[in-house]
Amino acid sequence: MTMDRSLFKFSSQVRVRNYEVDWQGIVHNATYLLYCEVGRIEYLQHVGVRVDLSTIQQESRVVLVRNEINYKSSAKFGETLNVHTRISAIHNTSFIFEGFIEEAVTQRLVAENVAFHVWLDGKTGEPVRVNEEFRNKIKKFEGKALLTQTNEPKIV
Amino acid sequence: MTMDRSLFKFSSQVRVRNYEVDWQGIVHNATYLLYCEVGRIEYLQHVGVRVDLSTIQQESRVVLVRNEINYKSSAKFGETLNVHTRISAIHNTSFIFEGFIEEAVTQRLVAENVAFHVWLDGKTGEPVRVNEEFRNKIKKFEGKALLTQTNEPKIV
Amino acid sequence: MTMDRSLFKFSSQVRVRNYEVDWQGIVHNATYLLYCEVGRIEYLQHVGVRVDLSTIQQESRVVLVRNEINYKSSAKFGETLNVHTRISAIHNTSFIFEGFIEEAVTQRLVAENVAFHVWLDGKTGEPVRVNEEFRNKIKKFEGKALLTQTNEPKIV
Amino acid sequence: MTMDRSLFKFSSQVRVRNYEVDWQGIVHNATYLLYCEVGRIEYLQHVGVRVDLSTIQQESRVVLVRNEINYKSSAKFGETLNVHTRISAIHNTSFIFEGFIEEAVTQRLVAENVAFHVWLDGKTGEPVRVNEEFRNKIKKFEGKALLTQTNEPKIV
Repeated sequence: MTMDRSLFKFSSQVRVRNYEVDWQGIVHNATYLLYCEVGRIEYLQHVGVRVDLSTIQQESRVVLVRNEINYKSSAKFGETLNVHTRISAIHNTSFIFEGFIEEAVTQRLVAENVAFHVWLDGKTGEPVRVNEEFRNKIKKFEGKALLTQTNEPKIV
Repeated sequence: MTMDRSLFKFSSQVRVRNYEVDWQGIVHNATYLLYCEVGRIEYLQHVGVRVDLSTIQQESRVVLVRNEINYKSSAKFGETLNVHTRISAIHNTSFIFEGFIEEAVTQRLVAENVAFHVWLDGKTGEPVRVNEEFRNKIKKFEGKALLTQTNEPKIV
Repeated sequence: MTMDRSLFKFSSQVRVRNYEVDWQGIVHNATYLLYCEVGRIEYLQHVGVRVDLSTIQQESRVVLVRNEINYKSSAKFGETLNVHTRISAIHNTSFIFEGFIEEAVTQRLVAENVAFHVWLDGKTGEPVRVNEEFRNKIKKFEGKALLTQTNEPKIV
Repeated sequence: MTMDRSLFKFSSQVRVRNYEVDWQGIVHNATYLLYCEVGRIEYLQHVGVRVDLSTIQQESRVVLVRNEINYKSSAKFGETLNVHTRISAIHNTSFIFEGFIEEAVTQRLVAENVAFHVWLDGKTGEPVRVNEEFRNKIKKFEGKALLTQTNEPKIV
């Protein structure tokens, strides 16, 4: 997982809060997933995709099916982190978020995350084609960097 | 990631607490990593590896370098979960924990996790050979199921 | 706040999980509120009060308006805690939960919590009389220990 | 607890993160304590009091002995909150933090917190006089608003 940073156009900031620091004096490993999720939600808001509580009662819904995260260095209390987020690929029924976290001042790489999402029919729960409106908004924002092959990735 | 359940000899139980349930009525995706970590720590205690606060000031220390998690179904408030844990491989300077979570009553698969750890020198922070005492304790517990090749896995 | 322990008839157990331990090696102060909430929810389930997600769309709903917590000693990783819970009083539109947490083996007192709840009309959001069915279930369970004066407590 | 807002000179900002929102669509009650703690730590840094991991191995240490929190309205995902913090009183061996949280745009009051701290001897764990350097820094910052009577408050 070596992400090409030049492909990322969107970033969020989070500050490490004291209670996120564990008994080793560093941010707990599960917390980086939360930071990446902050990034994903702000990304979706930024590109105009509605993210709200009612999504669970919609025609379709999106589920996270896999997370991969590489830990590169530990974040510490008081640090400000930049969370860079992009959608790297939209397949037929799935799409992929990539994110990386770096310390804001020194740009020290903290973690890299790939999050695989699947689009499901709201009633049957079966995978369905990723919504066209969503595709278009992401394509418009990401441009050529977005992979849009039809084949689903093989999730290990 | 299809784990061979027959290889797991150790399990822990966690009960889903109400505050772990998110705005979609299900356990938040980062929380499964916490459950798997509960499993790893209880596993280490079970096989006689000391896990304590002072480990950060030791000759060597262990860091988590990568997490992979597949989400299979959502856990809900009030469910009791079995967290199955094993060390599947010890390489030269690294070792791998596998874990899977299932709902206790129906054995519905909830999530599968692979967590890659590296053994570091306490002073230099460089990878060093996984401690022999640790190797022996794990070998004794896991028996033949434990992979012990010397080559490091290639972390994607 | 010195609670009369003989008045408590219900208790739950929680085990301190490693990630609940903060950078001081002890359970974070906000986490005790979570433990007490685990106790309250299990108490309500035990006495037959339905606790579910749909309560927010009901005729009436219950809100927590005040928490008081005294910290007596710190809980540590690996400790099992008994969380004792009771409803000590039902007033006209409000009721009071009391709880205390002790370490299971030594019965060392860890924390004491008083949580004030108000019963609201689901539409107007105005305080309304605590539901009779709820009153009866709690009275039946708590017996004489339950205060049922009509005057609301003065919340400081 | 009706706090005089004109006495507060310091404020922090937190943004509600999606995973802090519970199954009722609002920020969980324990999370407001975390926000207030963010405020206290930033306050201490602002007035020049060192807050670090090593404080537990010092001559003296500070413990939180009681929290009181009134919930006034619920914070929601995406809201930015102002957390106002002050030390309202320093007694002989204890001091009191007050805090209130309001939504940043509308200044809707969200919660009010009073947190009682005691200064302990690092070795014996017995209450000792609040450190002079700490007193002076707080006095300098708070000015006349700071109560400095010698009598300890009676914690209920």
